[in-house]
Amino acid sequence: MPKANLADRVFLTADSEETPQHVACLATFIIPDDAPGDYVRRLADRLRAQATFASPFNYRLRRVALRKVAPTWQIVPDDQIDIDYHFRHSALPAPGGERELGVLISRLHSRPLDPTRPLWEYHLIEGLDRNRFALYFKVHHALIDGVGGVKRMQQTLTSDPRSDEAPALWTIGPRVRNPRAAANAARGQRIRRAMRATREGALTAAGLAKAAVRLVALAQRNSESDVAVPFVAPQSVINRRIGRQRRVATQLIEFDLVRQIASASGVKINDVFLAACAGGLRRYLHELDALPDKSLTAGTPVNIRIDGDDTTTNAFSMVVVKLGTEIADPLVRLRAIARSNDAAKDELRRLPKTLQKLYPSLFMAPFVGQNLVGIGGRTNPPYNVSISNVPGPLEPKYLAGARMEAMYPLALLYHGVGLFVALFAASGRLGVGFVGDRDGLPHLQRLAVYTGDAMDELADAVGVTARALTR
Amino acid sequence: MPKANLADRVFLTADSEETPQHVACLATFIIPDDAPGDYVRRLADRLRAQATFASPFNYRLRRVALRKVAPTWQIVPDDQIDIDYHFRHSALPAPGGERELGVLISRLHSRPLDPTRPLWEYHLIEGLDRNRFALYFKVHHALIDGVGGVKRMQQTLTSDPRSDEAPALWTIGPRVRNPRAAANAARGQRIRRAMRATREGALTAAGLAKAAVRLVALAQRNSESDVAVPFVAPQSVINRRIGRQRRVATQLIEFDLVRQIASASGVKINDVFLAACAGGLRRYLHELDALPDKSLTAGTPVNIRIDGDDTTTNAFSMVVVKLGTEIADPLVRLRAIARSNDAAKDELRRLPKTLQKLYPSLFMAPFVGQNLVGIGGRTNPPYNVSISNVPGPLEPKYLAGARMEAMYPLALLYHGVGLFVALFAASGRLGVGFVGDRDGLPHLQRLAVYTGDAMDELADAVGVTARALTR
Repeated sequence: MPKANLADRVFLTADSEETPQHVACLATFIIPDDAPGDYVRRLADRLRAQATFASPFNYRLRRVALRKVAPTWQIVPDDQIDIDYHFRHSALPAPGGERELGVLISRLHSRPLDPTRPLWEYHLIEGLDRNRFALYFKVHHALIDGVGGVKRMQQTLTSDPRSDEAPALWTIGPRVRNPRAAANAARGQRIRRAMRATREGALTAAGLAKAAVRLVALAQRNSESDVAVPFVAPQSVINRRIGRQRRVATQLIEFDLVRQIASASGVKINDVFLAACAGGLRRYLHELDALPDKSLTAGTPVNIRIDGDDTTTNAFSMVVVKLGTEIADPLVRLRAIARSNDAAKDELRRLPKTLQKLYPSLFMAPFVGQNLVGIGGRTNPPYNVSISNVPGPLEPKYLAGARMEAMYPLALLYHGVGLFVALFAASGRLGVGFVGDRDGLPHLQRLAVYTGDAMDELADAVGVTARALTR
Repeated sequence: MPKANLADRVFLTADSEETPQHVACLATFIIPDDAPGDYVRRLADRLRAQATFASPFNYRLRRVALRKVAPTWQIVPDDQIDIDYHFRHSALPAPGGERELGVLISRLHSRPLDPTRPLWEYHLIEGLDRNRFALYFKVHHALIDGVGGVKRMQQTLTSDPRSDEAPALWTIGPRVRNPRAAANAARGQRIRRAMRATREGALTAAGLAKAAVRLVALAQRNSESDVAVPFVAPQSVINRRIGRQRRVATQLIEFDLVRQIASASGVKINDVFLAACAGGLRRYLHELDALPDKSLTAGTPVNIRIDGDDTTTNAFSMVVVKLGTEIADPLVRLRAIARSNDAAKDELRRLPKTLQKLYPSLFMAPFVGQNLVGIGGRTNPPYNVSISNVPGPLEPKYLAGARMEAMYPLALLYHGVGLFVALFAASGRLGVGFVGDRDGLPHLQRLAVYTGDAMDELADAVGVTARALTR
């Protein structure tokens, strides 16, 4: 029987009605022009027929009642898994635009998984306008993380537009031989490391405390410092206790536009993305009459693979970046963000290498801890908004002849940080997925639209003439 | 602030992940031939715009954590109710037949309501084949019962096919002046009485115990007795602990066919309906290799209004009827059911009138009680299956020019009785809604189909040539 490791335990323990611990990815595909009218239904039938289940898609909690204190998994035989429960064929009402898709995905993403069954759902959604369909894949973070889910979804795709292959996601196991290693590989890789760091962080708390003290001292010495200080984020409508319901919104941005802006302004691509998010947030919060005077801060993962090591271990850390949301001028804001991002990474590099990988625990440990003991959202959050950027393949990918238009990662929320913006680069485009607390953040699609507008503003400011994307 | 009465408390206390205490009704409508292509979208816009809320659609639990021990309601101002959360516009994937509708409604009916909001959802569903749309209205039993919900849904309809009125269900309050009485009237009427009977039943336990002893003695004296004995139902796959997921199936039967069969065979209409259910169950369970040797029994409400009293008080009781599922011949089975039903009602009439109305508590009290203390489904159920028959208007009804085709009541399950079959007569047709435990009862739509087939069999047996209905 597979044992629940620390990451499983953290995500199962943190599960609550308000903070269900699932992640998801949403992808849209363009149906080939010459496809028959029942293309999606045929695809549904082909997927549904693949009722064999690789790990962890066949893992079930052995005793649901004990999931928070002593979780154990059992492997369910294929013939006892109800494929019609996990695989769902849905449809959008007319006109089947981004609004209707957002409404449906908001509902799907709000709903906790059934803990008595394997913890995943896969939705094939027809009726999307411009001859498209969508996939929404949702999985518990104890089984697989967002990046893992995105990777697994990528494995169902091909670069060949003429191939009509459509392997079902749940049939694809981890690509390793040792079944025990396979089971481990299937689970949360990046975030699991962050969580392991949380535990290890406790053992090296002294080292981290020193880093924290240094950060605070730095910020106090100069209140105009570019270094954002964790837990000194301004309060905002984003940073409250959250409810059970979510809003999901999406935005699609041409990768080439972002590349051009970065090149013209001499900053990194990620800085441009952060600046567009900042511009969108500034306008969105201003309209809600809820824009703080001080800059919002973003918690964002960084790659710290510096020693040529090709393994996936120890390659993830986290920085807090000032978003410059108090700055009106888009270019001034972009430069401020780039400076803050650089400064935060410099600070990170000043840490001993062994501590760099533990750095996320500086934020994560109390953050997760607060949620576990129920005070999340009642104290200072570590930062205002989570923003993550996952690179993917830029060449076009296909599923059964349908070209993937975009893939949007959809993350989870904790009390205290009611907004997660995540980006996935695929097929030459950046798919940006916004997940927000429904009650705290009304009209979230506006934030998505404003983020696209902010990218256009940046393009204007640096003299690039392309547009983010017509939606 | 409205106080939670006994019925509210029972239904809130009995709420669990496996037994969410909501009821629903599903209705299908035929779009007028001359309607524009965006008829359903326009209807959705018109309904969504009616964001004023009559009681109890504006009731919210004051403190969710206390809902099981000390529930209190608060009235939410209209502008704080998120209409886009409660009103949902959905669609079916092609071909949009009864199968696709059943799959969607099964999911919707499985999902508990969000206890932090007013406890109802209203779904407008497009994409139903043969130019139809569907409504699914779901409400917590603590606010309103199934009959109340059906009545309220009826109040949104008109007899005039040319009227394009579409009053939203949530804008319609109870038709009384006193607001306190209004709040009460809005809640579960029939079942509330049953629940009050449960409490009163405890006070007159001696009287009921006598009735129970009599029933058992009667059955023991003659094991071939027509009288079904509560808590002596044979065990079956229906009668186990249930899971969190449901299957929903529907069947539509012409009222006139049932009337003809009843008339030709000299039994009551309800006997014919019970016989069709019995025939369907016999074949369905036989195919699962799970047909008990002894007859299954059904718990079914009866009207005991006998003194010309036009009030709604004290008019409801309950009997347990043998379904004759061990009998192969449909006509012999129909007669056995009619005899058992008559005998059960005779037994009921032998009780003093004051005890008649308390009779349901003989079944309900331990039934609900078992669920509350967590042993439901681990002891003998009071009967095998719940079957209920709610009369409605036989003339055609319309919503914004669309003729109502059928209305199907969808009830709730308890541990121990994993199947509820409910019938609503409307527009000259009987809409039969089947709700079953997903894990215990696979392919529930087969039971619906077999129930229609069994009705046809009865028609053949008595020489009536019409057919139940082509689906």
